[in-house]
Amino acid sequence: MKNIMLKVSYDGTNYSGWQIQENAITVEEKITEAIYLLTGERVKVIGSGRTDKGVHAYKQVCNFKTKSKISPSKFYYHLKKYLPDDIDVFYSKEVDMDFNSRFSAKSKTYIYKIMNTEYMSPIYRNYYAQIDYKLDFQKMKEASSEFIGRKDFTSFTKALEENINPVRNILDLSLYKKDKIIYIKITGESFLRNMVRIIAGCLVEVGRGKIKKEEIPLIFAKKNRKYAGPTLTGSGLYLFDVKY
Amino acid sequence: MKNIMLKVSYDGTNYSGWQIQENAITVEEKITEAIYLLTGERVKVIGSGRTDKGVHAYKQVCNFKTKSKISPSKFYYHLKKYLPDDIDVFYSKEVDMDFNSRFSAKSKTYIYKIMNTEYMSPIYRNYYAQIDYKLDFQKMKEASSEFIGRKDFTSFTKALEENINPVRNILDLSLYKKDKIIYIKITGESFLRNMVRIIAGCLVEVGRGKIKKEEIPLIFAKKNRKYAGPTLTGSGLYLFDVKY
Repeated sequence: MKNIMLKVSYDGTNYSGWQIQENAITVEEKITEAIYLLTGERVKVIGSGRTDKGVHAYKQVCNFKTKSKISPSKFYYHLKKYLPDDIDVFYSKEVDMDFNSRFSAKSKTYIYKIMNTEYMSPIYRNYYAQIDYKLDFQKMKEASSEFIGRKDFTSFTKALEENINPVRNILDLSLYKKDKIIYIKITGESFLRNMVRIIAGCLVEVGRGKIKKEEIPLIFAKKNRKYAGPTLTGSGLYLFDVKY
Repeated sequence: MKNIMLKVSYDGTNYSGWQIQENAITVEEKITEAIYLLTGERVKVIGSGRTDKGVHAYKQVCNFKTKSKISPSKFYYHLKKYLPDDIDVFYSKEVDMDFNSRFSAKSKTYIYKIMNTEYMSPIYRNYYAQIDYKLDFQKMKEASSEFIGRKDFTSFTKALEENINPVRNILDLSLYKKDKIIYIKITGESFLRNMVRIIAGCLVEVGRGKIKKEEIPLIFAKKNRKYAGPTLTGSGLYLFDVKY
């Protein structure tokens, strides 16, 4: 038995996210099917974390256990053939039997992309959130430090499931801008559901002057989702990297 | 009777190009259908030119004649509702009865996008040509002037249909680069079939050292498609503007 780790990149547009679920097509399902077609084995694929409907991944990491004799470093190459053209496995290797893509992860980095233009062509509809009112990028940049550190993110997540610890440790949050695109790059040990999309929504509220930097600690203190601004669309979100 | 001009932006990924054809879904067809649903009229929509399968448009211009009482400047707004989310009509106005989107056009500008990276995520598969060997951007830039002017482009088009004049006037061709993306921006009075994609392919051959700048006049002189390099994918091509 071997434990194989894969690096995967995908366009999330046509998927109901990562995690296998009934009556919906997911990335995990497509990879699980491809492994079955290649090896004949029904395996459990463990991802570093769920991505939501429409969310993309430059690099998602997953692993599974197999009896296959295929060379671990070539696994990715053979698997490609069984995957649709919006999912690409670009790396594989053998890892220790106790490696778990989810629990072994030290940090994850997401990028959120906002197109700040009056008009956005439908060419970009699945890859950016469009904000058509003018955003003050400098104010957004200044406010970003408020999210860094170990904090209770109850105000910045979808209704918490029971027994979920709402404390998360954000290691870095940086903003940069190229032409009309604002990029929010955020690294954390782990994230709550919709957390990056809500933080992005809160920063947009800062950019349009509805929320001030000084108010963000108060929003944290409220522990109530309704003060933090909107949840931006999944299509603007990209899983960028996972570190082990 | 009124002559209405529309400005349209579309993601060409899911279409067999602009022009209506049997057994294929096209952008022209979708717009013609939307006009029918809005006005009850079966009109002929005239586009500024065909775009091929998978080619995108930041701005395509078309026109049609209608007896509809809808205000010409609001036409686009009502039409939006009958269009799929990858086609957007963003402007409309009444024009002279003899305005013809194709024959009245003074020039068209296309942009071709090349991602020059070893690996390209499937996120980008429908929007860039990927070239994985290193391109010498400076050489490509230097060679670009060879295409400007009134020339016989027989070597740079798909097999010419009968009675087509192969002489075309290229007004401008400029290259620029941001990060790993090379943009080729080309303006001409009109273009032959596949002409931009073949010029892009020829410039890639220059970038990898297979064709020299000095050889390009010889390729023109051959009047033979086989010397000009490959036809790059339609998915990297964008109709950017049409001037009247």
